[in-house]
Amino acid sequence: MREVYLDNNATTKPLSEVREAMMRVMGEDFGNPSSAHSAGDRVREAMVVAREAVAQLVGAEADQIVFMGSGTEANNTVFNSVVQRAPMGKRVRIVTTTVEHSSIVKMCDYLGGKGVEIVSVPVDRCGQVIWEALDEAVTPDTDLVSVQWVNNETGAILPVERIARLCQSRGVLFHTDAAQAVGKLPVSVTELPVDFLAFTAHKFHGPQGIGTLYVRSSKELLPLLWGGSQEGGLRPGTENIPGIIGMGTAARLRLERLKDVQGFMASLRDRFEQSVIAQIPDVEINGDSDMRVCNTTNLLFRDVNGQALVARLDQEGVRCSQSSACTNQRPEPSYVLRAMGLSESEAYASIRFSFSEFNTVEDVDETVAHLARLCEQLRRFSRRRLSLLAEVG
Amino acid sequence: MREVYLDNNATTKPLSEVREAMMRVMGEDFGNPSSAHSAGDRVREAMVVAREAVAQLVGAEADQIVFMGSGTEANNTVFNSVVQRAPMGKRVRIVTTTVEHSSIVKMCDYLGGKGVEIVSVPVDRCGQVIWEALDEAVTPDTDLVSVQWVNNETGAILPVERIARLCQSRGVLFHTDAAQAVGKLPVSVTELPVDFLAFTAHKFHGPQGIGTLYVRSSKELLPLLWGGSQEGGLRPGTENIPGIIGMGTAARLRLERLKDVQGFMASLRDRFEQSVIAQIPDVEINGDSDMRVCNTTNLLFRDVNGQALVARLDQEGVRCSQSSACTNQRPEPSYVLRAMGLSESEAYASIRFSFSEFNTVEDVDETVAHLARLCEQLRRFSRRRLSLLAEVG
Repeated sequence: MREVYLDNNATTKPLSEVREAMMRVMGEDFGNPSSAHSAGDRVREAMVVAREAVAQLVGAEADQIVFMGSGTEANNTVFNSVVQRAPMGKRVRIVTTTVEHSSIVKMCDYLGGKGVEIVSVPVDRCGQVIWEALDEAVTPDTDLVSVQWVNNETGAILPVERIARLCQSRGVLFHTDAAQAVGKLPVSVTELPVDFLAFTAHKFHGPQGIGTLYVRSSKELLPLLWGGSQEGGLRPGTENIPGIIGMGTAARLRLERLKDVQGFMASLRDRFEQSVIAQIPDVEINGDSDMRVCNTTNLLFRDVNGQALVARLDQEGVRCSQSSACTNQRPEPSYVLRAMGLSESEAYASIRFSFSEFNTVEDVDETVAHLARLCEQLRRFSRRRLSLLAEVG
Repeated sequence: MREVYLDNNATTKPLSEVREAMMRVMGEDFGNPSSAHSAGDRVREAMVVAREAVAQLVGAEADQIVFMGSGTEANNTVFNSVVQRAPMGKRVRIVTTTVEHSSIVKMCDYLGGKGVEIVSVPVDRCGQVIWEALDEAVTPDTDLVSVQWVNNETGAILPVERIARLCQSRGVLFHTDAAQAVGKLPVSVTELPVDFLAFTAHKFHGPQGIGTLYVRSSKELLPLLWGGSQEGGLRPGTENIPGIIGMGTAARLRLERLKDVQGFMASLRDRFEQSVIAQIPDVEINGDSDMRVCNTTNLLFRDVNGQALVARLDQEGVRCSQSSACTNQRPEPSYVLRAMGLSESEAYASIRFSFSEFNTVEDVDETVAHLARLCEQLRRFSRRRLSLLAEVG
């Protein structure tokens, strides 16, 4: 059966150019970049090219790029650094939002338990941060503000530029988890006064297992790991060379075609959304449909069991998901949608579809056809169940 | 020019089977194992197989294997956990040795600065831990003992089984950095009462960027990272699927052929060592030539500038190194050899050669011929320089 993969916010399929570049540094061009001989040199040179490409994707200098194992590690590194560097006796204060990625939510839970003051600013029904609450939360004694750039479940774009300027004006460090932003919208740290920015390769057709932390000034960062002098001492340990070379290749290719890919993904997403709404009754878009990243839609299918719908679509070859991959093995409703004010049953009836440059118009139309049929079946089933329950009652 | 790669303790070239398996999970079989659909299922299944293979390589159960980004991360995770879990007010005490990998040395430096009591047990001229000193250091209030299994520079095998039993008898947690042991000698955690054991794939023809921590009981480990529920919550973040699958493949192939590969590498190493000693005057073996891993030799070429020798060998296509890759960009003598009692000039005159299953008898003989010629040249040059200096003086 043909696979229609619409879960690209979870992971994307690596480009063939990415895989080929990785094969080379695991084949004839292998080596350890710390080695003081030619096998080390050739890998070091490949890393320079990759670092430059990744830096360019976010408008940074190459020496501001620190490669690490994941976006989660990048986020954790920033939080750990802020806490470890705080002056003795100062109660650390971190401001974030209620819709962050699980790596930030769980880090905050842990730090909260250790006495760190965590302020989670709420969002509105569109998934947009409530500005007055944020403005009030960012006190001058705040040690870090961390707000995601793009929500992984709804695609909502948060006003990071405005938040960055607010933080700058108050002398507060600002970090953004940009895992769902980089590669999907133009990012330039030269125009955005952000101190740290985390992203990962597998959201734009690079490999899994490689993340990047942009660090404006290395003086502001204490490493999470200790060891060799790799990554300027900011992330010791033998480098994930295949991952770094793969990320560099993916970054270069995405930057070259960003505008086109962005337009293409938006056209598929919009065609999908319009068709669904035209053909299926009682469907609503969750979140801000204006301030939204090009490839994501999160749809509420009223009176449909979302989990069943995802499973039935899967049987038809269509892959999509109910919430973020980092949380959706849990049988809980999406905390992001709940934070936006959706009821539990609304959250359970919602599904995320996320597109990539590999998708086609056929993928869209096929999925819409499946959805129309399956929604009708599931709703019929659910109505029958309700009327049976009424008879019994 | 043909490359003779004799720096396999720094990194090894991935096997073609490893690369092919990685290609598949970055191609038609890609997916995020946290996804609740078929693309997630197929990757989850591949991970089960890989985890089982990695577990078998060290005689563990699959659920005792935690995949992470590197051996450095695995080592750091253990130290961080011990410090974070210590009761309030207890001064943490960690016992280690003077010849550990930089990830342990630097972690200890950092923790020492934070008030943790670090006891570094010395080694003798053979690189063997001085037992009386260790025995005395492991007090009942010690929180962790961490001793490497095999030294990365000399190949010395440390008596981890005896140390593990000592720790067990005193109720002290024992961790071993086994990066240079796993895949080169039989490892069985069922026979060895070790609590944690760290290793990495790129030492046995797996990819870089993937490490493993064996954890006897997950109750004893606090994660270093916070986030999703990957790796049972012990190492959150999207998994490095290509790395995990590559490590699993490398582990399976190594375990199947361990005895043969071990014998083959030892035969090359021994042929090399015997030829060098027979053909070149004033060469000594650094470290314990009995208790030594099969693939490593560290040779002291008296009155030879080791850095120059490494560079001249490199020009001939032979890759080897002066110390571990994680430190050898620094123009300092090996701290491992210094800790064994070698003088600074002896350490500078020493070179590590580390073999792999890809090496051949031709590699050995060619390298010995280069060495004989280059040592003579460098010694002649050094004698001439000394006599010129004497004339000038």
